[in-house]
Amino acid sequence: MTLTTSAPATTPAPVAAPAVPSRGRLRPLGLGEARIIGGFWGERQRVNAANTLAHIRGRLESEGWLGNFDLAAAGTLPDGRRGREFADSEVYKYLEALSWEIGRSGSAALEEDLRAVTARIAAAQEPDGYLNTRFGRPGQEPRWSDLEWGHELYCLGHLFQAAVARVRTHPEATDGLVDVARRAADLVCTVFGADGNQGVCGHPEIEVGLAELGRALGEQRYLTQAQLFVDRRGRATLADIEWGRVYFQDDVPVRDAEALRGHAVRANYLAAGAVDVAVENDDDALLDALREQWARTRGRRTYITGGQGSHHQDEAFGDDWELPPDRAYSETCAGIGSIMFSWRMLLAEGDAGYADLIERTLFNVVATSPSADGRAFFYANTLHQRVPGLPADPEGTSPRASSSLRAPWFDVSCCPPNVARTLASLDAYVATRDTDGVQVHQFAPAEIRTTLDDGRRIAVDIETDYPSSGTVRFVVRESADDPWTLTLRVPAWAAGATVRIGDGPSEESQPGAVSVRRAFAAGDVVELTLPLAPRFSHPAAEIDAVRGTVAVERGPEVLAVESVDLPAEGDVAGVVIDARTAPVERDGRVWVRAGVRPEPTPRWPYGEHRSEPAAMVEVPLVAYHDWANRGPSTMRVWLPTA
Amino acid sequence: MTLTTSAPATTPAPVAAPAVPSRGRLRPLGLGEARIIGGFWGERQRVNAANTLAHIRGRLESEGWLGNFDLAAAGTLPDGRRGREFADSEVYKYLEALSWEIGRSGSAALEEDLRAVTARIAAAQEPDGYLNTRFGRPGQEPRWSDLEWGHELYCLGHLFQAAVARVRTHPEATDGLVDVARRAADLVCTVFGADGNQGVCGHPEIEVGLAELGRALGEQRYLTQAQLFVDRRGRATLADIEWGRVYFQDDVPVRDAEALRGHAVRANYLAAGAVDVAVENDDDALLDALREQWARTRGRRTYITGGQGSHHQDEAFGDDWELPPDRAYSETCAGIGSIMFSWRMLLAEGDAGYADLIERTLFNVVATSPSADGRAFFYANTLHQRVPGLPADPEGTSPRASSSLRAPWFDVSCCPPNVARTLASLDAYVATRDTDGVQVHQFAPAEIRTTLDDGRRIAVDIETDYPSSGTVRFVVRESADDPWTLTLRVPAWAAGATVRIGDGPSEESQPGAVSVRRAFAAGDVVELTLPLAPRFSHPAAEIDAVRGTVAVERGPEVLAVESVDLPAEGDVAGVVIDARTAPVERDGRVWVRAGVRPEPTPRWPYGEHRSEPAAMVEVPLVAYHDWANRGPSTMRVWLPTA
Repeated sequence: MTLTTSAPATTPAPVAAPAVPSRGRLRPLGLGEARIIGGFWGERQRVNAANTLAHIRGRLESEGWLGNFDLAAAGTLPDGRRGREFADSEVYKYLEALSWEIGRSGSAALEEDLRAVTARIAAAQEPDGYLNTRFGRPGQEPRWSDLEWGHELYCLGHLFQAAVARVRTHPEATDGLVDVARRAADLVCTVFGADGNQGVCGHPEIEVGLAELGRALGEQRYLTQAQLFVDRRGRATLADIEWGRVYFQDDVPVRDAEALRGHAVRANYLAAGAVDVAVENDDDALLDALREQWARTRGRRTYITGGQGSHHQDEAFGDDWELPPDRAYSETCAGIGSIMFSWRMLLAEGDAGYADLIERTLFNVVATSPSADGRAFFYANTLHQRVPGLPADPEGTSPRASSSLRAPWFDVSCCPPNVARTLASLDAYVATRDTDGVQVHQFAPAEIRTTLDDGRRIAVDIETDYPSSGTVRFVVRESADDPWTLTLRVPAWAAGATVRIGDGPSEESQPGAVSVRRAFAAGDVVELTLPLAPRFSHPAAEIDAVRGTVAVERGPEVLAVESVDLPAEGDVAGVVIDARTAPVERDGRVWVRAGVRPEPTPRWPYGEHRSEPAAMVEVPLVAYHDWANRGPSTMRVWLPTA
Repeated sequence: MTLTTSAPATTPAPVAAPAVPSRGRLRPLGLGEARIIGGFWGERQRVNAANTLAHIRGRLESEGWLGNFDLAAAGTLPDGRRGREFADSEVYKYLEALSWEIGRSGSAALEEDLRAVTARIAAAQEPDGYLNTRFGRPGQEPRWSDLEWGHELYCLGHLFQAAVARVRTHPEATDGLVDVARRAADLVCTVFGADGNQGVCGHPEIEVGLAELGRALGEQRYLTQAQLFVDRRGRATLADIEWGRVYFQDDVPVRDAEALRGHAVRANYLAAGAVDVAVENDDDALLDALREQWARTRGRRTYITGGQGSHHQDEAFGDDWELPPDRAYSETCAGIGSIMFSWRMLLAEGDAGYADLIERTLFNVVATSPSADGRAFFYANTLHQRVPGLPADPEGTSPRASSSLRAPWFDVSCCPPNVARTLASLDAYVATRDTDGVQVHQFAPAEIRTTLDDGRRIAVDIETDYPSSGTVRFVVRESADDPWTLTLRVPAWAAGATVRIGDGPSEESQPGAVSVRRAFAAGDVVELTLPLAPRFSHPAAEIDAVRGTVAVERGPEVLAVESVDLPAEGDVAGVVIDARTAPVERDGRVWVRAGVRPEPTPRWPYGEHRSEPAAMVEVPLVAYHDWANRGPSTMRVWLPTA
């Protein structure tokens, strides 16, 4: 290979990734540079493209949320408007998912739909750039009159993320989506600029949307506006609602807060945007604060699944250590928001802990939400289902976030398109590069084809059926002659992991990351072996709700006991586990030694209580992300110890 | 004494009690027959009369909820109406509280206020009897158009309970309250009768209100209408809201349900009304169902405090065994509803278990809600406060139900007047009679003066400073010559209780009830001694949220550890208790041996965790009902064992 040291003659293609900071420890790889080609995630991407996008498209039409734009264009609003105040945003998230998927596959059918939907949206935009179907027309409330609940800026933030996906995957596209976003962003800067309306949106999202649109289009003032919104938050400009201003993170300025708090999606979206602002402004103090918030949130406010949010009432974080499994809200969108926050911290700082949390959340929240056919979803992801639910009507719309079986659609249906856009862009989360090489953060069969800053081209294939097995092979397909470094994440749970180069000896690698630096040649193989033996995980003593229990994990997957696997008449309420006998893997499943106590007769349940010993039998576990796929059932992740 | 065997010449005075069934195992004693004269409850009744009633009166005026009736009378509604859709009901609960308090004390000032308030309400009633400030006028939604949330029938139920209190304490009163209620009840029977509107109210209360008004006024059709409402519920006539029809108990017919479920106040009010209907109709199947529901609810859905309701989101019961202490909602009004239900079951069946739960709920929910001065209240009663709250503004109104300090008033302010009416009528819950004697259910300094069905007069004084001490003396002041039975409840926790008659030997009594049958003479003394040594209480193994913890109780009081009692820098989050060393009583407080672990540094909280042993010291506990009276603090009832 010959190094290309001259600058390319044309503007470099944009990096086709959701977050592309101008600086930071690691550089993202776009969809063309990292490509998942199968395995656990490849199958989910296939279902997403084949089923989920069409499912969402159909619902956006049948629920009238797309039709709202037509009504706006026809001038017949507010009559006939359907859906909640934030319905526009689901259309935008769908467009973002389409954009990424077109970027992956080049699907002409999806391209046609993107153009059609964009045209309907563009027709609804007002001459000054304002775009929202819920506000501002005769008979509607005035623009920006309800910052607490109106979601106008929130919706635009999602529009901007869609435009970012579009411009980064199709820079020359003529569909107009980017123009629509630009006009709306200009209006936001005019209305909410330094001397303008000093408000913030009740649902953060505009921050991350504006910051990325500014990066994608090279518009500094969008970044400046994002900074203004981040700085203004926490100064009590929003109303003191029943759940307090903490719900909107308007209780404490971002740089003064100690942990994520309030509504868990809002908190994570805000934090993600704040990282963007901190990085672009070299604002180390803000980044320090966000690092501390991330650490405390992970350490005291995150479920073992990576899920976040302990309250159903306000879809919010609880206090430190308040992590009830049976009331876990763990909203799918909060998990996605957490990935957005962690990913930006990873790009900024490079620490493997961020990628660990992303992996945990991907396998146990993002993978849990959709059904196998991609046409039904968990909105909330409980860790303990006490009562079997009823199957959801595949044609219906669930008024409830917290069903015990996946539902095809919700009155508030943020999660399906959020899952779709995440899966469609997942390739971009597999690996990064820096000046000296490539870092692999997630393990999936994939092709990595990238160019370092100095022009050296690198091609690596990842071969694995992880997490079925723990062997991950990195096969170099193309390499510069100079040495470069291949860095592999070693998950925190993977004590005993080994790395082998070619036919060399296996060497143990400590959790964190292992770096192999050498002058690679095509055909070189690095093999990472992660120990996947099922293991017990104990909760910290401070987590009151699961004291005296253990969970079982296998690699990145949290396991659970589901009633359909118990002896007849048994229920997860009566399960007690023998925690002195290690879980074993047999016949493709993980088994524990457990007993199932019979249901006690009702009596006053406090005082002197001796529980009956239960006969111990072998009980199989299910991957948490696979539960509730075999009909109504009860389920628990945390297993009381005998 | 000479027995009076002839019938009295005039209609007997009504029994001045909230619930007076026409049949059943026990007969209630009215305010004139049982009179609390001091002690724990006497002090709370004094504060209620001296402070709380005036506090409520002031807020009803300043919040405009009373003024709504003036606007209705002036024909100027809907403009200017203030408060939530159920604001009328708070005025009615205040009138009920006034009526009972006037019945106790004869206060002329309160009597004057009752007349003044009643006049304002009466002026708002429409010619056909309709009474509600929120519906039915030009510019308002039509009458009965929002049965899910309109609360019209709910408000009337409270009006009827107020009228019941009035007519039973002042049968000859000319204020017009009873007439207002009668006109409204007649309208309800016309509109919702057998051939009328087949709906039910989204918030049960009309059932118990109509049943009791029917009893108090001898109007069978009110009882019939109550029965219709009970029978119609559970048949999905209300909408399927986000939380499901279970929220309104409209998921399953009353007689088919297995436990209380859904909104905890609604569930208990409905159950109370259903007992009334079952008893009046000799409907044993319905009473059987309610007995089973009570038992399962007590056994699996009730906190150690007697509190009910595990969900903040919908103020609802959780599933069986879902009793998180830190998310305990345990609404004050749900506790009061539970007392209403238990009391009616006690009158119907006589079992001491009902009175046990009433006592527990009185001491740990009803007594917990009001501040010492009776001008601030807990709406929700958490069992674990993790973060100190901010003091409430004494002039303010709290938008939040779940504050960690008592608040003077709430946007939804059901609890203050509910506490007031309960305390003002508490005398009626002390004792009952049957054909053979008197049964004492609650222990307070009191005078009991009643007449058995056969005309025998009985006078007994109760002398005690319970629960400071466990000695309760029953001094007979007047007795028929014939033998009769004095039955004393022995709480389930009181193993080792003894009874002594006069100077006789102490005899141990099993928990349940002890009956002393003899030909008592004036001056006879029966002394019950209840062991009050503090004790550990263990939760049933099925209650996941408090596994590995113990609570400490003393007599009927649940105790708690509060941060203000811990060593400096200590917090309840770090408390671990030595459960092998029994709690001791010293210097008027209960002490346990406990350590306080320091706060851990943030890290991933699942995996291998060894908690540091903490140095053990003596830590004093506080009665749960007294917590949060010494400034912002954290608190927990359930103490992890070392």
